Amino acid sequence: MPLDAVGVAMLGAGNVGAGVIAALRAGHERYAVHIGRPLLLRRVLVRDTARARDGVEASVLTSHFEDILADPAIEVVIELMGGEHPAREYIEAVLASGRHVVTANKEVMAKHGAALLAVAAAHNVRLLYEAAVGGGIPIISPLSRDLLANDVTAVTAIINGTTNYMLTGMSQTGTDYAVALAEAQRLGYAEPDPTADVEGTDASYKLAILCGLAFHVAISPDDVAKQGITRLAARDFKYADALGYTIKLLATGRLVDGGVVASVQPTLIAKDEPLAKVDGVLNAIQIEGDLVGRVQFQGRGAGPAPTASAVLADVLDVARDIVAGRRPAEAVEHRKLPIHPPGMHRSRYYMRVTVQDQPGVLAAIAGILGGQAISIASVLQVETDDDARTAELVITTHHATGAARDAALAEIRALDVVVEVGNVLAMAG
Amino acid sequence: MPLDAVGVAMLGAGNVGAGVIAALRAGHERYAVHIGRPLLLRRVLVRDTARARDGVEASVLTSHFEDILADPAIEVVIELMGGEHPAREYIEAVLASGRHVVTANKEVMAKHGAALLAVAAAHNVRLLYEAAVGGGIPIISPLSRDLLANDVTAVTAIINGTTNYMLTGMSQTGTDYAVALAEAQRLGYAEPDPTADVEGTDASYKLAILCGLAFHVAISPDDVAKQGITRLAARDFKYADALGYTIKLLATGRLVDGGVVASVQPTLIAKDEPLAKVDGVLNAIQIEGDLVGRVQFQGRGAGPAPTASAVLADVLDVARDIVAGRRPAEAVEHRKLPIHPPGMHRSRYYMRVTVQDQPGVLAAIAGILGGQAISIASVLQVETDDDARTAELVITTHHATGAARDAALAEIRALDVVVEVGNVLAMAG
Repeated sequence: MPLDAVGVAMLGAGNVGAGVIAALRAGHERYAVHIGRPLLLRRVLVRDTARARDGVEASVLTSHFEDILADPAIEVVIELMGGEHPAREYIEAVLASGRHVVTANKEVMAKHGAALLAVAAAHNVRLLYEAAVGGGIPIISPLSRDLLANDVTAVTAIINGTTNYMLTGMSQTGTDYAVALAEAQRLGYAEPDPTADVEGTDASYKLAILCGLAFHVAISPDDVAKQGITRLAARDFKYADALGYTIKLLATGRLVDGGVVASVQPTLIAKDEPLAKVDGVLNAIQIEGDLVGRVQFQGRGAGPAPTASAVLADVLDVARDIVAGRRPAEAVEHRKLPIHPPGMHRSRYYMRVTVQDQPGVLAAIAGILGGQAISIASVLQVETDDDARTAELVITTHHATGAARDAALAEIRALDVVVEVGNVLAMAG
Repeated sequence: MPLDAVGVAMLGAGNVGAGVIAALRAGHERYAVHIGRPLLLRRVLVRDTARARDGVEASVLTSHFEDILADPAIEVVIELMGGEHPAREYIEAVLASGRHVVTANKEVMAKHGAALLAVAAAHNVRLLYEAAVGGGIPIISPLSRDLLANDVTAVTAIINGTTNYMLTGMSQTGTDYAVALAEAQRLGYAEPDPTADVEGTDASYKLAILCGLAFHVAISPDDVAKQGITRLAARDFKYADALGYTIKLLATGRLVDGGVVASVQPTLIAKDEPLAKVDGVLNAIQIEGDLVGRVQFQGRGAGPAPTASAVLADVLDVARDIVAGRRPAEAVEHRKLPIHPPGMHRSRYYMRVTVQDQPGVLAAIAGILGGQAISIASVLQVETDDDARTAELVITTHHATGAARDAALAEIRALDVVVEVGNVLAMAG
């Protein structure tokens, strides 16, 4: 070992870890030039030290977290275990030991980021997490630094590649949800248990992180209103298309009336909007600020190599600080803002309702919407089932609150002539 | 003045300067929270101190550069004069006096960036220039930090809003160059003398800066091969459209055979490419790296408010460093790489040629192209002028060098049956 190497340890060596190890080896000489000293991977924490890992000497592997804290030459620890526990505890212990941490852990940062950043500040070290959102797309650092002069008013993002791949397929090929899921699972884009992706949990973690940085507030993933994509049907895409829209799982955070509105939900978005064109596993994050207007960041949101790009950017940054003897800057302070409950969110809506094919039905539904002060923007009677004597109505509305929408839907469901409320989706804009 | 304010001076107070002053006033309290100390604008260098400026007390105005160097409380100087001289000399003097500089000056940074960054390093201060490329779009900082782990192999960008506005208009409305220029001038998007925009000079400055950061090389704007948009005709857009393309003024830098290829030229780009959808005054920069794949940054590339967003991001960053007592990190070192001359650039090409409408013409042209080892990809005989007995051929080719293209064009021009070589454009991909 060269005496002056920057010692690095890694917690976890799964797919992303293997990507980081490969990138560290491939870029070793360049990184040494950028930093002024080489990086040296001194320890990798794994469950099974008997299993060989490409590019890692067996002596580097350990199954004991304490080995990492015990090595004084380790200055930076990369956390790639994923999941809440024991990652949170390990990160805290590493920070408290006076070492810098680079993590890709969206769940830990969403749930415990503020507390862990305080631990880092207290110990005069850095906690960096560019890889936690958007894979290789630079977004944490741009929000933290490059857009800091702005009063950011909105974050609108496609930040789950699995669901975007599925929704793109449903939109382009007219397949139903189950088919799209099976295809995504076959290709390895979706997990055998896809819940965290398709119910919006993964995106809610990322959105909570983005909102915290964009609005300088503490926001928990529990504050994010979630609607999954599991109820989307092929005909929702067909109707959306006829209206000039496509459907994306949008993660949206906005400053409204001095508070924060945050949601992850399948949303109709006009086809000519930049985010409507973000297809397949791509991610994109759009930030709206008072000075900059709208800026959009786009790229591959997952995968070992893109994630390694973000992880190693953080490692290089902190290593350059170590070499230059730079202390961490103070964290930007959070402010206290109320988080608005979903009932206060305002949106336009798409409503698909199966009704009995008889006179007066539309009048009854329109009356209920009007009673909740919800204006109708368009009505499409799209399909009739002659045998069942039913028809499908697609209604789009102007802006209304979630509470008004829910009250109207309860009344609509109670109508004798309504067979089923098929799907109710938000519309962007 | 609060004793602990961070003293700022500004050189120049034109449109962008007014935008920065307005943003400084509007964001004053937030910025003080972010920095930990307020910013105080102590001096503004202008030509005419008699003319009042919104939001600036008359006593702050000066027409003497020396006043700024003479004020020890000024720690950060924002240069917004534009142009090469005296901006370069002023920046150097400010850096040499031990003060940080934030500049939006693409010309100075493209021509003298390396030398000025060395001056900054020698005096242990920072020279920041996020606003020099892409207006408010974060790109300098992402390239310098967030993508640093990558071996960047290509930069592809739309970085001149004036020409993108004109080309979008020509594409969408079928107007000719002169009409598009007049419209852009009427709206204030194009200068009365549009040369720097329409000939690609402005874009070549920005590309030189981007290539320097992306490839870690010193590259001069003179190393950028330039082709303007002045010869584009409405029918080039019509033919491009028929082929599935649109035309953009693309700034492209690539690592090829251990050297750098850099060009600014109107380029046919397939309609489904993300950059093809960047319309109007928007800018977009696509970076391709070995780890991250392709990431794209998009937004408004000019205007007082977006530029102020970038300028103030740099000011906040350096002010936070001042407050934290952080020293500048070492600059990332440049390497020596050859810059390939335009003749060595390889591209596909679009060629529009007016020929006499008689047998054997295509065979003659195809023979010449074949003789230069240029493969034809498609041929379209698009218009015939029965009176003149001429026809227009649109030929697209596979990849060939600029040298082979030029040699073939010289032979084609010399053919008796060729009336005119109308336009020859690069094709992306």
